[in-house]
Order: sequence, then C-alpha cells, then structure tokens
Amino acid sequence: MMNALLSLNALNAMPEEAFLAAVGPVYERADWVAAAVAPQRPFASLTALHGAMHAVMASRPSAEVVQFLRGHPELSPGALPAGLTAHSSEEQRSTSLGTLDADTETRLVAANAAFSARFGFPFILAVRNASIATILAAINRRLGSSPEAERIEALREVQAISWMRLLGRVSPAATGVVSLHVLDTVRAGPAVGLPGALWFGDDRVASFTTDDKGRSGRLLDGQLRFGSYEWRLDTAAYFAATGLPTWDRSFLPSVQTRFTVWNPEEHYHVPVLLTPGSFVTYRGT
Amino acid sequence: MMNALLSLNALNAMPEEAFLAAVGPVYERADWVAAAVAPQRPFASLTALHGAMHAVMASRPSAEVVQFLRGHPELSPGALPAGLTAHSSEEQRSTSLGTLDADTETRLVAANAAFSARFGFPFILAVRNASIATILAAINRRLGSSPEAERIEALREVQAISWMRLLGRVSPAATGVVSLHVLDTVRAGPAVGLPGALWFGDDRVASFTTDDKGRSGRLLDGQLRFGSYEWRLDTAAYFAATGLPTWDRSFLPSVQTRFTVWNPEEHYHVPVLLTPGSFVTYRGT
Amino acid sequence: MMNALLSLNALNAMPEEAFLAAVGPVYERADWVAAAVAPQRPFASLTALHGAMHAVMASRPSAEVVQFLRGHPELSPGALPAGLTAHSSEEQRSTSLGTLDADTETRLVAANAAFSARFGFPFILAVRNASIATILAAINRRLGSSPEAERIEALREVQAISWMRLLGRVSPAATGVVSLHVLDTVRAGPAVGLPGALWFGDDRVASFTTDDKGRSGRLLDGQLRFGSYEWRLDTAAYFAATGLPTWDRSFLPSVQTRFTVWNPEEHYHVPVLLTPGSFVTYRGT
Amino acid sequence: MMNALLSLNALNAMPEEAFLAAVGPVYERADWVAAAVAPQRPFASLTALHGAMHAVMASRPSAEVVQFLRGHPELSPGALPAGLTAHSSEEQRSTSLGTLDADTETRLVAANAAFSARFGFPFILAVRNASIATILAAINRRLGSSPEAERIEALREVQAISWMRLLGRVSPAATGVVSLHVLDTVRAGPAVGLPGALWFGDDRVASFTTDDKGRSGRLLDGQLRFGSYEWRLDTAAYFAATGLPTWDRSFLPSVQTRFTVWNPEEHYHVPVLLTPGSFVTYRGT
Repeated sequence: MMNALLSLNALNAMPEEAFLAAVGPVYERADWVAAAVAPQRPFASLTALHGAMHAVMASRPSAEVVQFLRGHPELSPGALPAGLTAHSSEEQRSTSLGTLDADTETRLVAANAAFSARFGFPFILAVRNASIATILAAINRRLGSSPEAERIEALREVQAISWMRLLGRVSPAATGVVSLHVLDTVRAGPAVGLPGALWFGDDRVASFTTDDKGRSGRLLDGQLRFGSYEWRLDTAAYFAATGLPTWDRSFLPSVQTRFTVWNPEEHYHVPVLLTPGSFVTYRGT
Repeated sequence: MMNALLSLNALNAMPEEAFLAAVGPVYERADWVAAAVAPQRPFASLTALHGAMHAVMASRPSAEVVQFLRGHPELSPGALPAGLTAHSSEEQRSTSLGTLDADTETRLVAANAAFSARFGFPFILAVRNASIATILAAINRRLGSSPEAERIEALREVQAISWMRLLGRVSPAATGVVSLHVLDTVRAGPAVGLPGALWFGDDRVASFTTDDKGRSGRLLDGQLRFGSYEWRLDTAAYFAATGLPTWDRSFLPSVQTRFTVWNPEEHYHVPVLLTPGSFVTYRGT
Repeated sequence: MMNALLSLNALNAMPEEAFLAAVGPVYERADWVAAAVAPQRPFASLTALHGAMHAVMASRPSAEVVQFLRGHPELSPGALPAGLTAHSSEEQRSTSLGTLDADTETRLVAANAAFSARFGFPFILAVRNASIATILAAINRRLGSSPEAERIEALREVQAISWMRLLGRVSPAATGVVSLHVLDTVRAGPAVGLPGALWFGDDRVASFTTDDKGRSGRLLDGQLRFGSYEWRLDTAAYFAATGLPTWDRSFLPSVQTRFTVWNPEEHYHVPVLLTPGSFVTYRGT
Repeated sequence: MMNALLSLNALNAMPEEAFLAAVGPVYERADWVAAAVAPQRPFASLTALHGAMHAVMASRPSAEVVQFLRGHPELSPGALPAGLTAHSSEEQRSTSLGTLDADTETRLVAANAAFSARFGFPFILAVRNASIATILAAINRRLGSSPEAERIEALREVQAISWMRLLGRVSPAATGVVSLHVLDTVRAGPAVGLPGALWFGDDRVASFTTDDKGRSGRLLDGQLRFGSYEWRLDTAAYFAATGLPTWDRSFLPSVQTRFTVWNPEEHYHVPVLLTPGSFVTYRGT
C-alpha cells in the first residue's frame, strides 16, 4: 500500500484489466464491483468513483450482499490468520488486536462467535487505527441490532473501508482545502489578527494570521490528505491585543483541536467561536 | 526558584524576618508589601495570602504606586541587563526576548521608549512563557490607554506576576481538583461510558471513564499544579457504542483541549457538549 | 379529557375494573395492555407505569404488534371520520388536518395510501399540536424505511402517544422541577444577579435573580406540567451591571428560549452560556 | 418624533440652516456638533454621518466634553421636570421612571445625587425602553468608576443616544439585510429544508425554508428597521424529516431567539447550530 499513488488521469485512461488490478481489491474478494463501474470512466474525482462503486453494491439483492459480507475475515485477536487479503492484513495490523491481554481476547472471541451465529456473517468494522475500546463498543452494540439493521450497518462499514482503501491507491482530485473562521463572541465580530497554525502529525503544514473578517484564508489548497489535522490558535496573543476582562490569565491560553479530513477532495470550513472562558467549534459549510 | 517549595504551615509559623526572606521578593523591590501582611498570619491558602498582599498595594496612593512601578525592569531584547532581580531574570529568560531578529528588536526598543515617555514607568507584563507576538500586541494596545487606565492595568500585571512568583516559593493548599462533565446534546443526556484522560505536558496524569451522569469524577484531588493541562476524550469509542448517523467517520474522532490551571487551589469544572460534528467547552462552576 | 385528573394514589388503590376504565384507552383499542400491568401496582410514578405498559407491548411478537398498529386511524384530512376513539378525535382536532388546502389534502391522501400499501398499517404519529409540515416530513421520510424499521418507529410513536394520553388522565408525581444555570463565558464564571423569569404560555409562572453561583434555584418545585415553557433572561440589566465592551448595545438584549417539559416528573436543568454576542443552551443533567 | 422620516438625499441637499434644524437636536443642547459636519455632506449613510458627529465630540478637550455632559437632564423618577428637550422627554417616557415604587424612587434619587457629586455631571444612559433594573445596575456600577473612565463611558452613552435619535429623524440607507444559516451538528452539515420565519413585534415579516446549504437567503433586503427581531425555526418539522434518536420529543421543539438590529444599514448574519438537545447562536460575519 505504500507504493506510489496512481493519478486519476492514469486510472481513467488505463485498459480495463489494469483498472481491475488497480482498484478491484477495494471491495474485499469482490472485484466484480470495480468491473461494473469500469465503463463509466472517466471519473472526475475519487468521490465520484467511490460513489459509483457503492451504488453497485447497494443495488444488489440482500442474499447477494450477505454472500459478499461472508467474504470478510473476522477481527480476531492474536496472530493474523492465513489467507487474509493484503488490505485486511494491513488494516488489522494497524490495531492492537495482536497484543490484547488474555481477558480481552476471550471477550472478543466470544463476541465474534455470537455475532456470526446471530447474523451469518462476521463482524465488519472499518478498523484502521481503531482502539480496542472502539471495537468492543461497536460489536456489543451491534449484537443487539436486528438482522436487517445490521446488514445496513455492515454495508456502511464496507463503504468506509473501501474509501480508505481507494485513498491508499489513487491520488484524490486537488479540490480540497481547509479554512478557519474565528469569531469573537464577546465583541460580536471577527477575531482579527489572531496568529494560528495547522499541524499534520508533528509537522506544521500552514501558518496564518486571521484577516479583517477573522478568516485564515485557504490553507493547503489542493494539497489536503486523508488523516488527522490539528489547528492551534495563539489566543494569548489575541487577548493581549484586545484586553482581558480579569487579571488572571485566560482559561484557554491556546486553543487547539484535532479534526479528521475524511475526504481530501472536500472543503473543510471550521468556524471557531472564542471567548476567554469558552470555545465552540464545528464543521461548517 | 527551583528549590523545594515551602509549606503554608512553615510559612505561617516562621519568624517575621524569615517570612520576609521567603515572600518579600514576590513584589519587585518592595518587600514592605510582605511586611505589611506578616501580622495577618496564619493564612489558610496562597489565595488568601496573595489577596492580602494585593490589597496592601491597591490601597496605596497613585504616586506611591507609580514609584513602585518604576522599580520594574524593561522587557528589553538581547542580553539581560545588569542588576535584575533573580525573579525578573528568570522570567525574561522564559521568553524569546534574547533571540529576536533585528527588526523585531528595533520595534520593541522603540515601543519601550514610547511607553516610558508616555507613562513615566516601564512596560510591565506577566511575561512568563509569553510569545513575542503577545508582548508586542500588549505594548501596542496599552500605548493607546490613558495614564489612569494604564496604571490600573500595570497593577493587574503585577497581580499576575506576584501570583506566579508566590507559586514558585510556597506549596498551594491541597484543595484543587479537576472534573469533566460530558453531555451528549444529540440525545440530550449524559455521555456515559466515554473513556478519557488528563495530560500534563507529556505525562498522562489521570484516566477515567464517564459515569452514568457523564462525569469523570474528581481528578488529581489535592494534587493540582499551576500550568497547562489537556484533556482528551476517545469520542470514537463513544460513538461506536451509540451509533453514528452517517457512514463517514466523525469530524471529531478524538476531542482534546488544553486549559490553564492558574490557581491550583481551585476546582476546575469543565463541561463538554459533544456531537459528531461539533463541540463546546468552557470553564463551569 | 378535560376532566379532573386522577391521583396516582387513587389509581394504585382502585379495583382492576376501574383501573382499566381509567387507563385502558391509553393504548388505542388495546386495553389488554393496561390489564397486563394492573397486578404490578402500586406504581411510584407515571414514568414507571408508562414504562411497564410499554414493556408489555414491546415484548409481543411482530405479528401481534402489527395487528395492534392496524387498530389506529389514519391521519386523514377534512372532517373526522366516524368511529374514532375519544383520544384520537381530540388529537386530530389539535392539528390543522381539518383545514388544509386542496393540494395539501391530495398529497396527504396519496401518502397515506402509499404508506398503508407498503406497510400494511396506517401512518401513526404522535400528532398533538403537530404542524402539517411536520406530518408531511415524517410520512415522506418513513415511506423510505424498511418494514422492520417502520414497525420500530411506529411503536416509538405509540410510546409518545400513550405518554401524552396518560398525562391527560393521571397527575404526575410531584418530583419535577426546573433550574437554570447561567455562565458568563467572558469572565469564565457565574453570571451573578441576573434577573429572569419562567413563562408557561402567556403566564409568568416564576421569577428569580441568579445567585452567586449563577443559579436560579429550584423553580416550580413539584408543580411542573407537560408542555412548552419559556425562560427569559434580562441580559440588558446584567450587562449594564458588568459593563459592555462596545458602545452599541448587545446583539442579544434579552435572551429567551422555549423548551418542552415532556416528562413533568423529571428535573429540567438548563445551562445557558452567555456573551454579548452569542449564547448556548442545552438540557443538562 | 413620529413625523415622516427624512431621506438621506434630502438631508444631503438641504441648506445648512435646515440641516441644523433636522439633526442638530441629536446632540443634547449642542447643535454645534451638527454644524461642524454640515460641510462634509453628502454622507453615503447614516453610519457615516453619525461617525462624523461622534468624531467631532471625541476630539474636544475634556473640559468642553464635561460642559456638554452637564447639559443633560437627570433620569429622575416621578413627573418629568420642566425644560426637557423633546428627545429627552420622549426617552424618559419610554421607561418606567414615572411609576416607580417609593423605595425605588428613593434609591434612584440618592444614586443620582451621589453621581453628580462625584463626577460633576448627571448620570447619562441611553435609556430608551430600559428597565429600571438596567438603570440601577448601570448607575451603581459606574459610581465605582474613576472620573476619566466615567467620562469615557458617558460619551459612549451619548454615542448610543445620538444614534437612536438620528434613526428617529432620517431613513437609513437601504443596505441592511438579515440572513440565517442553520447547521445540523449531528450530521456535521447544513440543516436543509427547515421552515422558519422572522418576526418584528407581533408581525411575521418574512418566511423561508433553508436551502441545500442550510441558508435562509437574504431577508428584508434593504428594509431593515431598528429594533428587536425574532427568528423562529420549526425544528419539529426538521427533526420529523431527519429522524430523532429517541422516542420522546425534542427538548427544543421550536427554536427562537430575539436579536437587536441596532444598525439597520448592516448585514445581520445569524448562524444557528442545532441538535435535538441544544442550540448555539451568535452574530456571525
């Protein structure tokens, strides 16, 4: 998976056989999904390609969907079983499934068995980087679902899994961007001149000072990647410029939050509402 | 300053001369402030001691206050000038004043000169760990104040400086504590069973799972320290347990925020309002 | 329905026949639900009684549930059809179903027909005071559900309908109360001395001034009623006391919000986070 | 004041004498302010005209400002004193100053006397529609200010008073507009298809349904008036369309908030963040 990414252009132009080799494994043991969308090329974006693939699967009768779901491996503790696809191996390795304590292993094995017995297919979760707490919480909740509800939810997980696999193979279109908009709700106006930065892991990938509308401008324009970003605002400098209402320092001397760029082809607009003692943030539009 | 901290009990019991040696330097070149409060001992808390010292200063006539303010050093760029008190040296060293570029040095020197000319005393800021952006923002704003307003603000800075100095000398009373309260505003109820942790710098200092009221319980009870804490909530595990409304992952897979414990004798109660696409946090009561 | 309410004590003490007469109609044409819980008396609260009745229904096999759902009338436009139960008549009269324009009537009739054809029982909605926009939005969304999902949702509506019917017949236990907690997130502390009031329709039912923790105290203690309340805060007076940062008046000179007391046996705790240019409110715990 | 409003065009074109008659009384007994700005005509907006008038006053030496402040009447309880200007009479009549109880009268008279004794000019407040709680809160806080701080604050009140007087005489430029933007923070996207309305007093002045970005569109374009508006959102219909997570109804079945249009020449952009159990609103940009 760590190979160089294909470009969308290359993917759109290649012979069908190469196309199947390139994106067939995105659906577990079901490259007929890729085959079904090959004639629809060219795709303008990964979002469009992924949407077309999901539409193929979503239009299948229930029995066929269940058959497909049965092709997935269990999320089993301990050593990886033989016969996993390359994608599944890599995904399971990104978790702590290999290093659970004995008690947790026992609970997970029991839950897996109960799940298969109830629904007739293994528990499927978009597991990349998931904590064991997340895995157990999900399987325990879903054990209580009806068969139909679980089939719907399993397909949603497949949607997530196939999206992440696709991003590991093909470069997204260069349409993504991040922008922040900081409001000072004490003054009921923009927070002007506030220094900030955007981080990706341990790297500072963008710096900015908010403009006279409180905006960061377009950051990482066309360079967005799947993963976890963090913005940090130097609110201490901002409040030094505007004055604080009390002698003790702000409760929030620097404000920062991680957010996930799930779709690097999208615009992530992030408003932040700021006071010395609180903040609000959300994904805007 | 890195010596072992005195206990409040010891401070309350010691002879006046030792008391003056212990806390006199908390007000810059003005141990008459400590002398004035020595007879009020015992103090039940650092908060009470600091409040008493501030009350002494705040009751002085303006001319005397200005005289006191004049005893402070400038926040000058480059090498530390001779004759600084030990506290002032340490505080200025905690900043980047020693390593500014030439242009910033020039701007700061000019601003300092303008400030002294206008107000008759140097620019005073509780400067520990302050960025140069914060320092410049503060001096530029305050250059526009009236003399009276600036005298008030300078005293507020002295209040902050003396508090931090006191915390470097005497242990706080063991009354401080942190608690989180997480609300799920989608379900209009507590976020139950959410795993979380509290960090201080690179150390995880407490772990918890929210109870059936969404509360973390009392964390670091009586062990709070001055400085920057960070809470982190494993919202991915929580939403795995409750179910997400959409197939793509939460915008906020893990929520975390730094906050300042300015007064380690207080209770820091921190509500968090959570949805898959937003959060709100503030210092509650 | 406008008769005097029974007390819980009376309900708990009466012969089974009278109990069935009193609460049997709460489930539409299904007083066997009341009969099944009669032996569980005494109930400490309406919440407990309603929970027991719902548990009876929820434990029935699907076919029996569908049979029960078929006993409900359609939400039909125009004049009320013959043969409605007293409850259903009253509920439909509380809407604008009787005075729709011709186009809306046609759409509703078509949606009802499509719904019955798809699911084998009529569209059921807890319709008291619902707008026609709400009714159409709900039926159109639910037409897209699977049969199983719709059966679950119809039962949820029955849960809501039976709760409102029960409240029309029996007095709730006197355990309900409202409290507000107002935080000033500019000062990161309680909003003290803020005048406020609680309204029910056109009546001011409680007045208060927030205490030194920003709290209203317990309002309407044991007197809560089902329905729509509104709190109003005189933020202009509060900001006059604390000072505003700008010369123009607050964006929010008086802050007010309606909220529903759905269960008058519960505690409605309502935090409000206030700044001159924003507010946040939610149901707390 | 209830006369027809002048247009900006007429004001810009009229002889100086008529201009002074038209806007001179906007500053209490100080039509020299209007005279000073007359040559700067034409003004493109009331905002510009008012800004120019304020700049004239703000540039005067302190002694002259105090002289001007002395020309204002007291906010005295009981019958209006003789000799008030028409504006002052009307403003005081809009309050409850004429109908206070004896105890409140006594407190206000004492506070007024203390104020004049301390500062040498009467207590000035932009009093239109202010509650007595607001009046008392403001005078009691400001009694604790320094003379300089109070002079600054009194001028800010004059700024507010003159703005409201100007709006009573001249029509604003037709540049104002209201827009709402509703975000569903559960789904991390726009709240689409949500019905809403805008009210002014008892009149519904605009209706809308949010578009596919959650926006109301431009409301009251060029028709904005000074005063208190209220938006109301039919969140019950919205949640009926999207589905609620729980069987009981939303805590917030209809969301509504009043806001002040202080400057009818501006754009009031109002974001609302919505969940079934909470909402956030603020003045955006």
